[in-house]
Amino acid sequence: MEIAGQSYHTIWLDENDEINIIDQRWLPHEFRIVKLHSVNDVARSIREMWVRGAPLIGVTAAFGMYLATVEAKDKTNSALYLQECSQQLLATRPTAVNLQWAVHQQLHAILQADSPQERTKIAYDIARRIRQDDMNVCRQIGEHGIKLIEDISARKQGATVNILTHCNAGWLACVDWGTATSPIYQAHNKGIDLHVWVDETRPRNQGARLTAWELAQHGIPHTIIVDNVGGHLMQHGKVDICIVGTDRTTRTGDVANKIGTYLKALAAKDNDVPFYVALPSSTIDWEIGDGLKEIPIEERGDEEVLSIYGLHEGEIKQVRLAPQESKGLNYGFDVTPARLVTGLITERGICNANERDIKNLFS
Amino acid sequence: MEIAGQSYHTIWLDENDEINIIDQRWLPHEFRIVKLHSVNDVARSIREMWVRGAPLIGVTAAFGMYLATVEAKDKTNSALYLQECSQQLLATRPTAVNLQWAVHQQLHAILQADSPQERTKIAYDIARRIRQDDMNVCRQIGEHGIKLIEDISARKQGATVNILTHCNAGWLACVDWGTATSPIYQAHNKGIDLHVWVDETRPRNQGARLTAWELAQHGIPHTIIVDNVGGHLMQHGKVDICIVGTDRTTRTGDVANKIGTYLKALAAKDNDVPFYVALPSSTIDWEIGDGLKEIPIEERGDEEVLSIYGLHEGEIKQVRLAPQESKGLNYGFDVTPARLVTGLITERGICNANERDIKNLFS
Repeated sequence: MEIAGQSYHTIWLDENDEINIIDQRWLPHEFRIVKLHSVNDVARSIREMWVRGAPLIGVTAAFGMYLATVEAKDKTNSALYLQECSQQLLATRPTAVNLQWAVHQQLHAILQADSPQERTKIAYDIARRIRQDDMNVCRQIGEHGIKLIEDISARKQGATVNILTHCNAGWLACVDWGTATSPIYQAHNKGIDLHVWVDETRPRNQGARLTAWELAQHGIPHTIIVDNVGGHLMQHGKVDICIVGTDRTTRTGDVANKIGTYLKALAAKDNDVPFYVALPSSTIDWEIGDGLKEIPIEERGDEEVLSIYGLHEGEIKQVRLAPQESKGLNYGFDVTPARLVTGLITERGICNANERDIKNLFS
Repeated sequence: MEIAGQSYHTIWLDENDEINIIDQRWLPHEFRIVKLHSVNDVARSIREMWVRGAPLIGVTAAFGMYLATVEAKDKTNSALYLQECSQQLLATRPTAVNLQWAVHQQLHAILQADSPQERTKIAYDIARRIRQDDMNVCRQIGEHGIKLIEDISARKQGATVNILTHCNAGWLACVDWGTATSPIYQAHNKGIDLHVWVDETRPRNQGARLTAWELAQHGIPHTIIVDNVGGHLMQHGKVDICIVGTDRTTRTGDVANKIGTYLKALAAKDNDVPFYVALPSSTIDWEIGDGLKEIPIEERGDEEVLSIYGLHEGEIKQVRLAPQESKGLNYGFDVTPARLVTGLITERGICNANERDIKNLFS
């Protein structure tokens, strides 16, 4: 997608085959590009959320395994080293399943190769393919999801379609297009009148910082709201559809996504607002049937709750929000049961959030 | 209640009969007391939320009408001036009904008096009585509400009772005790093991700033969470009861409270967690039967959404959270339909949230 008129991806190889990423911690206040030179760099960039979003975490980890094959050449036991690197990468974030999917895919292929050179070549090709696939898949999600927006627009006779989204399931969470935003970008590009309600998404404000920023860069009308507002908007008919992303979806259609998604899904149900989840199939965990019981939910440090970063007189500063005596608790995700999900928008099409329909689509 | 071991109210007359308030905008970082010398001062203190919380707004406005009688003595048409002052005060905040209740009560009594001196005396007495009544009523709310906590504690055989609250319906929202916090303080004082989940309550963070602070001052175990977390906690059995306040309750039991309350009520219903609303009867609007259609919802400036205040190196600073290009929308309240409310905790006792039971309690 475009930033100030120039085309960007969230991760790319430059002319020297070095891995470049947008360091998303400083957005929207500063736009910084950094290079990842080592497995340690990659692990840190995922753990500290320089990159984030389930698809982008997967792609970045895939490049991490490519770097692992380069580093393994100097090790006496290179297979052991590759195993250790995969463990290091898997430990960075527990909830997103794309991370496991990408790392396991790499490890499986790499360990079958005969020479260090071949390992590196295989890992390089797989990382590039996973990256390219993510772009294709996100584009396809948009091609399917746009129909939902077109239908609402037609029903409203061209009046503005109001879409609510939570967190950032935009192109910044992927490589390009985004998942939840892909139908939105494509509908906007096609001239459909739409407007996005952007949940700020505390504690890390990925909505206010990232989604608002990427929508603004693309010229899409949007309004930032605090996470408390969505229910009120739905009660008053101001939301036509909710579209969110997911970090892990069970084979039965339960959806782990950024903390607070469940509350919006409840409000959507209570007000007959369609609630859709956009996802690449790499986000489906076919092993798991009960999202509430089986998906591990990341707990992060409470400083993200008690303090916040923002811009003050041109500088990014951290301010304390809470009393010095108080502690916080910081869960990164929650699980929305399938019964609250109207449908899943995937690269293969749209299906109901239940085991049979998901299997039918991907069999 | 106590601050650092010293007893305070949120509003009081000092030895010179001057009106003192705690300026709550700077809490928890700074504790500031200011004097209100004029109707303009009072209107500003309510509009700009130096004082806030439906009961305290009512009490402060009552003192504003007392100051109006003092100022009216210099006016050629003092009755007109008193009317104008009442309009000025009523216009400060639209949602809390206690404001109307207190101002109308004052105006009605004042305009029946024969002399300027008598008006001032009446207004002075009524303001002091409303203040004293608020303290009594809040204490009574606690005496009734404590039973709910005691029952849970007994059922859990003395294990910690986890209570979730939204915004600040604490003593800082009243004169003393608070509404939602009154049962909590009284249960804690009685030795019941409890813990409070404090919703930070964006955009103005009354939970993280005020509720956490007053609970900390009283030594009550608590944890600050972002507004997105409550649903997840309830899904996992970590909330035994929700208790919130209200700014206006219809005669049918619909509850207007701080934006986001509705989302927590939905989650409570979905997880069979009892959801109680604590209120003085001055908060009941007997004129209104449909909260969603009839309660005016305050819309505030979007700078509260796009920026936030916090402490940086010992100074309170405002930082920008959102991209410069983005706008926000800022509703102050939402309405929780009676069907989601387990019960109302009032100064007369606990009742179901429906017209018949509310009328029975107050007839």
